[in-house]
Amino acid sequence: MGDPKRKVEVCFSPALFSDFRNDDAVVVIVDILRATSAIVTAFMNGVSKIIPVATLEEALEYKKRGFLVAAERDGIVRDFADFGNSPNNFRREVIEGRDIVYSTTNGTQSIMIARESFRVLIGAYLNIEALAEFIFHADRDVLILCAGWKNKFSLEDSLFAGALSDIILKNARFYTTCDSTQASLDLWYLASPDLMGYLEKAAQRHRLKKNNLDDVIEYCHTPNLTGLIPALKDNYLTRVENIG
Amino acid sequence: MGDPKRKVEVCFSPALFSDFRNDDAVVVIVDILRATSAIVTAFMNGVSKIIPVATLEEALEYKKRGFLVAAERDGIVRDFADFGNSPNNFRREVIEGRDIVYSTTNGTQSIMIARESFRVLIGAYLNIEALAEFIFHADRDVLILCAGWKNKFSLEDSLFAGALSDIILKNARFYTTCDSTQASLDLWYLASPDLMGYLEKAAQRHRLKKNNLDDVIEYCHTPNLTGLIPALKDNYLTRVENIG
Repeated sequence: MGDPKRKVEVCFSPALFSDFRNDDAVVVIVDILRATSAIVTAFMNGVSKIIPVATLEEALEYKKRGFLVAAERDGIVRDFADFGNSPNNFRREVIEGRDIVYSTTNGTQSIMIARESFRVLIGAYLNIEALAEFIFHADRDVLILCAGWKNKFSLEDSLFAGALSDIILKNARFYTTCDSTQASLDLWYLASPDLMGYLEKAAQRHRLKKNNLDDVIEYCHTPNLTGLIPALKDNYLTRVENIG
Repeated sequence: MGDPKRKVEVCFSPALFSDFRNDDAVVVIVDILRATSAIVTAFMNGVSKIIPVATLEEALEYKKRGFLVAAERDGIVRDFADFGNSPNNFRREVIEGRDIVYSTTNGTQSIMIARESFRVLIGAYLNIEALAEFIFHADRDVLILCAGWKNKFSLEDSLFAGALSDIILKNARFYTTCDSTQASLDLWYLASPDLMGYLEKAAQRHRLKKNNLDDVIEYCHTPNLTGLIPALKDNYLTRVENIG
């Protein structure tokens, strides 16, 4: 009865984050092609910590200090880095028990701008049900922050926002009055019967294809391969259960 | 043959404008509920000029100098103003041949940030075909700038962006690779068979209803009541044919 309901909002670009900022909320960072799908995969394969850094300069500094470094811009691996942005890079034999420093075009910046929030989670289709379970248990407002592409709206991140909102809003504790959430839901309902077909409309799908990086698109849209949720603690990502 | 094709882009928020900025483009400003619908209506009823100002302080200064002033925030008319934001305010007997100063929550700021563009047009369903004709004749890139709500995405502006993009993209001179345009088109195709029904999902529809300001929603979604296009010249709006 008395308990207020929890709101669900979707932010289409890190450049709009300040207008949505809600430090009491659980924030889910989304960069489906490919940063957040790759980060979830790294934890599936036993990485210990991931340190997101915004700039390539920071990534290079860590590299000099002996860290494994993942760094790409516009989909292309940087010369000095050990890996780029493909989930295929993060194989168990290379990363198990290691710490990785990670810098991408859109994804890592989005993680750090949300750092003051109650909890910052890394979201992907790979762990979508686990995210929803965490959110139900936390019983707080939810902000789904789409990394987008260079501050622009991206279809693939918005579709995921719709998919996750759809699950959350089936729980009567949650509601939305947010137009971005409504749009995400309707785009998801439209796309989900043939998600791979619909993604042909997405610019990022074609950017990856052009660079022969589109081998992971189906993988990045596979639901529930894991119950793991990476989350931000201080300045690094760890499994959410390691956070007090 | 050599002629490059012209691109169509949609920007969902004035806060994202700098990432879409294209000074060679025709920019169409959209704030369907209600600023741009009201501005088009004012020109239909014979207003001479409209001077958009960003702040209420500027609007008040003009009022002291004897101008007619339209000024609202969050849908509410300001005490010192002659009108608010309803197209019903701009009746011929009050405004014909007059200059009006205009400041609204979202609309007028969007007009001024685009001022360096080749042409800044005021867009509404009321003049949608005229906009398309102008754009075909100009044969330039097009950026549809949605005013949104306090920097957030708004459904009603995005639907209009989809409606206008749909007309423009039927002309083979124009193309898009922009995810915001794709999303706008798909939302438009989904909504247009029952536009008034779909708008029940829009937050602004409920904001207006709560303040008894929703009497103009159907009017603001009526296509092609006029061939007039207001456009920015220096620091004021006039009919586009008055611009050299």
